[in-house]
Amino acid sequence: MSPASRAYPPDRVVLREVGLRDGLQMVEHFPSTTAKADWLHRESAAGVRHFEVGSFLPAHAMPQFADVRGVIDICRDLGVHAAALALNDRGAADAVQTPLNEIVTVVSATEEHSQANARRSQADAIALVGRTVEMAKGAASPPLVQAGISMAFGCSIAGAVPSDDVVRIAAACVEAGADLLGLADTVGFAGPDQVTDLVTRVQRELGDVVLSIHLHDTRGMGIANASAALDAGVRVIDGSLGGLGGCPFAPGATGNVVFEDLVYLCERKGFATGIDLEQLMSVRDIAATAMPDEPLYGATPRAGAPRQIDWRAS
Amino acid sequence: MSPASRAYPPDRVVLREVGLRDGLQMVEHFPSTTAKADWLHRESAAGVRHFEVGSFLPAHAMPQFADVRGVIDICRDLGVHAAALALNDRGAADAVQTPLNEIVTVVSATEEHSQANARRSQADAIALVGRTVEMAKGAASPPLVQAGISMAFGCSIAGAVPSDDVVRIAAACVEAGADLLGLADTVGFAGPDQVTDLVTRVQRELGDVVLSIHLHDTRGMGIANASAALDAGVRVIDGSLGGLGGCPFAPGATGNVVFEDLVYLCERKGFATGIDLEQLMSVRDIAATAMPDEPLYGATPRAGAPRQIDWRAS
Repeated sequence: MSPASRAYPPDRVVLREVGLRDGLQMVEHFPSTTAKADWLHRESAAGVRHFEVGSFLPAHAMPQFADVRGVIDICRDLGVHAAALALNDRGAADAVQTPLNEIVTVVSATEEHSQANARRSQADAIALVGRTVEMAKGAASPPLVQAGISMAFGCSIAGAVPSDDVVRIAAACVEAGADLLGLADTVGFAGPDQVTDLVTRVQRELGDVVLSIHLHDTRGMGIANASAALDAGVRVIDGSLGGLGGCPFAPGATGNVVFEDLVYLCERKGFATGIDLEQLMSVRDIAATAMPDEPLYGATPRAGAPRQIDWRAS
Repeated sequence: MSPASRAYPPDRVVLREVGLRDGLQMVEHFPSTTAKADWLHRESAAGVRHFEVGSFLPAHAMPQFADVRGVIDICRDLGVHAAALALNDRGAADAVQTPLNEIVTVVSATEEHSQANARRSQADAIALVGRTVEMAKGAASPPLVQAGISMAFGCSIAGAVPSDDVVRIAAACVEAGADLLGLADTVGFAGPDQVTDLVTRVQRELGDVVLSIHLHDTRGMGIANASAALDAGVRVIDGSLGGLGGCPFAPGATGNVVFEDLVYLCERKGFATGIDLEQLMSVRDIAATAMPDEPLYGATPRAGAPRQIDWRAS
């Protein structure tokens, strides 16, 4: 069994809560480290076991992630899986000094977006994945390395993205040693049939690499796309509490797929998540207090889970 | 070709906009007849061809539907398909005096809900479908009769609903002469796999009757359920502008599946809707003005449709 399969057992669905990373990416006000600790403590008590909690970047650039080391220590103390972004060599070098479980690297699906967003070529981004893998191997407790492919379902700059390109980049990332692949609908263009097609294609070409999907609800397709991904065999899905996160290319747009509704979807499809939905929904209070300007999305939190039917997976 | 297939051609998707019926079911403030005319005019200009526009009930009970005859006349003048509810003999008798295209009758999927909500047995409700069919046949221009099965995916009173029960009721409604069947997730309990199962079962047992689905987004599953229904062969889907409608059993809950996001879903899945999304979204202003207390949902209206990709079905 690969290290990635130990962290993400293939026989069950793992929902990764990315609110403390992607949900904070664009906010002005953000939770204090104490509030983040409370968030993680209460979500882990609700049964969430996998988190993305920050990004290794200069504190002056992204003050919301200045406490990433402390937050990773909190995850270690709670015994939950902690992932964080490292987008350059310095970030990766810093990341491997922590008890992080997973370093998330990012490669754009298009050369145009890679140059505009990361100011490097796709080839350089893939080389960075390789160097991050090497650094991870040298760590006291080697973290997994995820290669997340942003704009995999369409690009805010280049438009449509051929699935051949995504497969090629994914294969290069696996070749470079990535333990997991992530397919990200960064700007929320995808529809469910597209998810089915791309996921099926990547799985066919890349065998049994652990595949995760990162969905945005920018056009309301998040849950439908997650359902399609589950049907196609994906077992690792990102979401954020309250759908926090927005879209950098569409001011006022909805953000990540809503974690609470994702739990309902999985359970209703027969995939046990191990997550107590009532307890999870109560954590929204922390976000509401720490980020009063950020709308909290989600339908299940408004209605509550059904009391009259047994909606949980057995 | 059956009359129902003429109104709902089997080779294309028809989206029915039910905001002026289900969207007004629980509101205190509602659009004037002039505002409804503007709504219908602008949505039909955007390409929407099928509407549910009211309910034949005593005006004192439901003042929002007191102008239903005038609204049906507006639909006739616009040349769009107008449906309205008739929930008793008096309503059906009134309905057939109008140029209505479709009378919607309702049978509860559970005896408990039928008694509690309609104060009649399921057998009596099915008999009423039959009488409505007879009245329709005698009309100058016979309307279609839809038998909508409420609580088909779970009941707010009885809980889980066996698909055998839904199939049995659906068969009885077809036997009684209903031209179309509707399956309604009245309280938003359904998940996509359940939609696939029930739709497949009903289609297998009832052959080529025109089947529509009426979804609520109460737990955020609306678009995923619509996608599952489309995949299973359903070609008629209800939705409401801005997701208007709420849930009578969950105060503050989201309402019908959002029509605007439904258009995006269909187009992204390759089903041309004939609807101009930009024009459609602009109609939200009417709802916002006429019903300032009602939240307008929908992700696509927040973000706008993508400009960088060709998201429309060819």
